[in-house]
Amino acid sequence: MHQGGKLTVNTRVSVNSREDLSHVYTPGVARVCMAIHEDPDKAFAYTVKSNTVAVVTDGTAVLGLGDIGPVAALPVMEGKALLFKEMAGVDAFPICLNTKDTEEIIQAVKWIAPVFGGINLEDISSPRCFEIEERLKRELDIPVFHDDQHGTAVVMLAGLINALKIVGKKLSDIKVVFSGIGAAGVACTKMLLAAGVTHIIGATRSVGILHRGATYSNPVMQWYAEHTNPEGITGKLPDAMKDADVFIGLSGPNVITVEDLKNMAADPIVFAMANPNPEIMPEVAAPYVRVMATGRSDYPNQLNNVLSFPGIFRGALDCRATVINEEMKMAAAYAIASVVPEEELSESRIVPSVFDKQVVERVRAGVIRAAIETKVARIVPADFA
Amino acid sequence: MHQGGKLTVNTRVSVNSREDLSHVYTPGVARVCMAIHEDPDKAFAYTVKSNTVAVVTDGTAVLGLGDIGPVAALPVMEGKALLFKEMAGVDAFPICLNTKDTEEIIQAVKWIAPVFGGINLEDISSPRCFEIEERLKRELDIPVFHDDQHGTAVVMLAGLINALKIVGKKLSDIKVVFSGIGAAGVACTKMLLAAGVTHIIGATRSVGILHRGATYSNPVMQWYAEHTNPEGITGKLPDAMKDADVFIGLSGPNVITVEDLKNMAADPIVFAMANPNPEIMPEVAAPYVRVMATGRSDYPNQLNNVLSFPGIFRGALDCRATVINEEMKMAAAYAIASVVPEEELSESRIVPSVFDKQVVERVRAGVIRAAIETKVARIVPADFA
Repeated sequence: MHQGGKLTVNTRVSVNSREDLSHVYTPGVARVCMAIHEDPDKAFAYTVKSNTVAVVTDGTAVLGLGDIGPVAALPVMEGKALLFKEMAGVDAFPICLNTKDTEEIIQAVKWIAPVFGGINLEDISSPRCFEIEERLKRELDIPVFHDDQHGTAVVMLAGLINALKIVGKKLSDIKVVFSGIGAAGVACTKMLLAAGVTHIIGATRSVGILHRGATYSNPVMQWYAEHTNPEGITGKLPDAMKDADVFIGLSGPNVITVEDLKNMAADPIVFAMANPNPEIMPEVAAPYVRVMATGRSDYPNQLNNVLSFPGIFRGALDCRATVINEEMKMAAAYAIASVVPEEELSESRIVPSVFDKQVVERVRAGVIRAAIETKVARIVPADFA
Repeated sequence: MHQGGKLTVNTRVSVNSREDLSHVYTPGVARVCMAIHEDPDKAFAYTVKSNTVAVVTDGTAVLGLGDIGPVAALPVMEGKALLFKEMAGVDAFPICLNTKDTEEIIQAVKWIAPVFGGINLEDISSPRCFEIEERLKRELDIPVFHDDQHGTAVVMLAGLINALKIVGKKLSDIKVVFSGIGAAGVACTKMLLAAGVTHIIGATRSVGILHRGATYSNPVMQWYAEHTNPEGITGKLPDAMKDADVFIGLSGPNVITVEDLKNMAADPIVFAMANPNPEIMPEVAAPYVRVMATGRSDYPNQLNNVLSFPGIFRGALDCRATVINEEMKMAAAYAIASVVPEEELSESRIVPSVFDKQVVERVRAGVIRAAIETKVARIVPADFA
């Protein structure tokens, strides 16, 4: 399936005569160039910019493989581009950068931006990914989205919205424990804070529970300690698990035990999202949890980014959004959750299938509505006028 | 024809089930990544790299439009990519850089190079284009080719080879006069020197005939003066035209007159290649020249780069050449010339049609043979083994 690569660049017009040639190329193309030169917004009408996303990586955090470099990362970026196209008709192209320097990555993306309608950052290691995304969001006028952070966060929230319906709890009332505060862990935490969750505790294997008062050399840990753990609990992960309603793992295999699950509140919700080996295996956890989800396709409730990024970019491109903001991500999460009809919701079905055509359609609609409401849409698509 | 852009990124495999997904993306793709991580050459087997060319511009010298910027240049780069695909099945993607700085352009191309099997530089203004190409050729292990220079030079030489057959003259005996020594003029001059032409005189509108002894602030002019004009002729363009066998114009409209043509040697050959308005109009020149060619599609003998770059890159990609060297370009020129059968050669047919399928096939073959002979081919394609 990978032989020769998984993508091809095709032409949307064919050239069979001198006349065709004079239209698509010189001299005919000059008129199109000058129209864009006079009004750069016309690039969205007359070039690939309106439908093109760069899938950008430096190859430092590829799947669970780590820093394998830009060339070895290419099969994943092609796979991502393939999913963009198959799921949402987006023309995505892999850009694998031969540098790991934060400033150089930012510079490279800014230089290549003219061709693209959006930038999807992928598999760039933490903490560089935070600054790269923040800076690019500020300095470019097209959406920049680090899928490992926000794609994951959107799907996690979608799953949680539906899981909470099953157990009859509210976002504002739950206690959530995070294991792992890398790129995805931080993004998921921010998403839950934005969604109204107030009681979040984070822990890592190296420093245990993050809490106010402590000083962390890692600025991400410092931020985390200052914005979570309202009761100032200290200790290790098992100490945090007491009375937790929800556990969200974005760390590594075998981080929690059956004992931890037994200490949770009634109807525990466990999202063990480490790939490929979750924080606890579903068959081990089963007797002690009410709702269990993983990142794997071979268990129920796969929390897969493929549910989020295609529809999010489809929506952002269709309204020519200048950014993908919090409101658009929130709308995407609720849209994904809405695809599972209430009557079909169950412990083993909290998210729709990635092949359900409703997913992209509803995510797109939610994203466009949110973009228009928050005034980041450059145009209103015909079906929203 | 340009609405929505002229390119689309398509998938070569489809994803219709969870199983497909697990093969093209995680977890299946990890095996492919690790294979490339262990042996980077495998990227040519398992990714798009084997067939992908970046069409890189900074938008500073777009067609005859000048410095219109990277976004406005995009329709031309898409057109170029379209021709790569339609003519030679090459997957080309436009990269329009938002910088005009020589060092930054070099840096940007080096950073994005991992995805590509070749780099086609396009519409970058002189003299920056020379250093950018030279440096990238040295610093990258994939072919780098500035089409405005070398594509033009290859087609010019192809046309000249056939024109000389008609008038019964040899490359080594002719006197050639150039008007314009920009990127294309210099490349054409170097190509003729490499092909055995010894008597070349160049002139520009601003400084007249370039000659030894004079000092030029422009290093390109200095080089030119030192490598041409063996008799040390001085004066203006009309002074050079006396007894010239060939005139090659890569300058601008109305640079030569009927008087100049009358001063040429018997059977004058005039390539008035300025676009869109040639150095002298064919209908004006007709009574005084034996063979006339232009860059235009509405006159006979169109010297069009489309005859050269698709086949050159097809050949370079197919043998995974590390560079496109002089020998490969020379082979391409003779290959193009060979497509017109001797018995069909005439004053109005010195080059084949751009739609003649033989062109890409023969150029590819010539380029591959030359690459193998000069030891710059990484592999020998099956049909050359």
